[in-house]
Amino acid sequence: MKILKDKNICDINGFQAIGISCGIKKGQKKDLSILYSQYPATAAAVFTTNKVKAAPVLVSMKHIESECTRAVVINSGNANACTGQKGFEDAVTMAVKTAKCLSINPEEVLVASTGIIGVPLPMDRIEKGIETACSALCSGGEDGAAEAIMTTDTFPKKITVETIIGNKPVQISGIAKGSGMIHPNMATMLAFIVTDANIAKPMLAKALRESVQDSYNMISVDGDTSTNDMVIALANGTAGNPFIKEDGEDYETFKKAFDFVNQELAKMIAKDGEGATKLIEVSVSHAASKEDAKTCAKSVISSNLVKTAFFGSDANWGRILCAMGYSGANFDPEKVDISFQSHAGIIQVVENGMGVPFSEEEALKILKEDHIIVLIDLKDGKYHAAAWGCDLSYEYVKINGCYRT
Amino acid sequence: MKILKDKNICDINGFQAIGISCGIKKGQKKDLSILYSQYPATAAAVFTTNKVKAAPVLVSMKHIESECTRAVVINSGNANACTGQKGFEDAVTMAVKTAKCLSINPEEVLVASTGIIGVPLPMDRIEKGIETACSALCSGGEDGAAEAIMTTDTFPKKITVETIIGNKPVQISGIAKGSGMIHPNMATMLAFIVTDANIAKPMLAKALRESVQDSYNMISVDGDTSTNDMVIALANGTAGNPFIKEDGEDYETFKKAFDFVNQELAKMIAKDGEGATKLIEVSVSHAASKEDAKTCAKSVISSNLVKTAFFGSDANWGRILCAMGYSGANFDPEKVDISFQSHAGIIQVVENGMGVPFSEEEALKILKEDHIIVLIDLKDGKYHAAAWGCDLSYEYVKINGCYRT
Repeated sequence: MKILKDKNICDINGFQAIGISCGIKKGQKKDLSILYSQYPATAAAVFTTNKVKAAPVLVSMKHIESECTRAVVINSGNANACTGQKGFEDAVTMAVKTAKCLSINPEEVLVASTGIIGVPLPMDRIEKGIETACSALCSGGEDGAAEAIMTTDTFPKKITVETIIGNKPVQISGIAKGSGMIHPNMATMLAFIVTDANIAKPMLAKALRESVQDSYNMISVDGDTSTNDMVIALANGTAGNPFIKEDGEDYETFKKAFDFVNQELAKMIAKDGEGATKLIEVSVSHAASKEDAKTCAKSVISSNLVKTAFFGSDANWGRILCAMGYSGANFDPEKVDISFQSHAGIIQVVENGMGVPFSEEEALKILKEDHIIVLIDLKDGKYHAAAWGCDLSYEYVKINGCYRT
Repeated sequence: MKILKDKNICDINGFQAIGISCGIKKGQKKDLSILYSQYPATAAAVFTTNKVKAAPVLVSMKHIESECTRAVVINSGNANACTGQKGFEDAVTMAVKTAKCLSINPEEVLVASTGIIGVPLPMDRIEKGIETACSALCSGGEDGAAEAIMTTDTFPKKITVETIIGNKPVQISGIAKGSGMIHPNMATMLAFIVTDANIAKPMLAKALRESVQDSYNMISVDGDTSTNDMVIALANGTAGNPFIKEDGEDYETFKKAFDFVNQELAKMIAKDGEGATKLIEVSVSHAASKEDAKTCAKSVISSNLVKTAFFGSDANWGRILCAMGYSGANFDPEKVDISFQSHAGIIQVVENGMGVPFSEEEALKILKEDHIIVLIDLKDGKYHAAAWGCDLSYEYVKINGCYRT
């Protein structure tokens, strides 16, 4: 598998994408994206588990049942959540309008939104924007789709890779947005992955379901699951690889590259957490079960106290042990080792559940870096898990404490 | 039931208490408390569910099995957590020393600690402190016990009430500490309640177990459960009320006063959350079950996004609906009403799951107050629950982001 540095969604065979400004956001910022497959594609999706689901989530949950999917329309700046029957109708209209412009069926269009909760969509601008976008769909080159799904993200998140399945090169490209829920209630983590892989719908669904568990579900910016979260994968089969319709070597090869794309996008989201100054990776090894490893890693990365300590570059291992302790994971506190690692080096701070003497100066040097790995060894089994997050800064409070207006 | 404004633990018949400085904290701040019952007392306790338990928790879990309890020794400034075998021995020594000074059995002494994790206790100072404290035990008047258990608390937390059981006045007095887990890793929520009620050990245990669920377990400062959390109740029976040995009117009367004491202490802890500028109360009504009401209230009060919005006096109801949605509680999003209330008035912001127009100016006036009630009506059943917390401020990040040194 290799990373294709300057490629994006538009470069994947049979896919077109574009991001434009339709006037939802101020200052002509891009706020409308369309992803389009020129050929019938297979789709899989994972939706928010929040009981309060935005209208586009409800529409997409219905449309994903369709055998074939051809397009995704996404707006930023307005979440179309808690908007009642009118909001639902607006989300349907987005699909219908996109379908009409692309001469496909409305059921072949998925819809996603991110932004303010509780405010009706400016449908006139959105409908005009969909027309403009569809007529300008590019193939190849920079597309702006990753920019147009951003809310308070400080950089667009995208990655493209290539792997070989049955002697055929298969490409996977994804874009994502998300940096916590934000002023003014910009919710949502969104990710869209397209591939030219030839894969059956149930296998794509399986790959996505599993991949999400070890990527997006292992990041924490502030612990809030939004009303609009959505991950969508489209596969149009144009790579011509042997059809992946069951478990096996081809599926594993695809899955590995697919996992990589999702994990990299997830890490970009964690790194771009609101107000974040550092990417924190918590790596738990030798757990008695996969579940224990994940629960433990997730609990540490989600702790406000751990996050603020990292903001202060404080080697505060007590908070890490404490967060592990209340996680519900099974482990023996008296066996735990903890080290901190970064480009500046590695330092052990806990051995068998007790602090070991260490140089505060050296620890500070390591923790001042912008990518910190917390290595936790449970010495209890063979399972491993990683979770990603960021520190908790003054800026987070500032971003989220402001008035909505 | 009435509140006894100027009374404290020392005023409860047969109880003595004192708080002194033994030299764990800098600047001669009080850091050692002893609570003593002159008569054999019945005890109940609830301990942290954190898998990583501090040494005093382990010792007290053992000693609570004793039929009779006579004293509690508490130090602040050092949690005696993650301190290995030596830490366990130190906690035992605290019980043994206290027992010797008071001429009682070590098993009749409970031990609690709060403060830095991973640093051995200064046992010479603590042992001398226990001697000094025991010889100076007061009865009646101000005792300093509530001050000596404080860490970053900004005010001592105590309350005393009186109720009538079988024509006899029964008094209950409690002290507590806790303001989140803090620099330098001062963990822990502690509460100690003494009463002259005549009540059987199993009934006191039942009352405490239930009461904790609706008080301390319904507050959230930062969601972290410490290695040292502990709530202890002592009852010495000197009020001479008819012995409470089973459910019934007398138990209910006792429970009501006991619940009040625990809820008031819990609210004081929430109000004194690290960096807090406001007490936030989330009141969920008409839930389909008690559990749904509690889960919902707890989720809202624990959300960083909700907490930062309150810091900014922002009527951000979308975040509240969102936190309810991912809580796992059963409710119909389309039935939810939300209002904000404070001394300045009340304003409805959500009706049937959708925003209603409201005056931002009026909302701001209400949310600028220092005690806000979020009224959530699920219109789904007959159950109610309340949870308490505080806002999330710059000061929280500052307190928790500093170096331990």
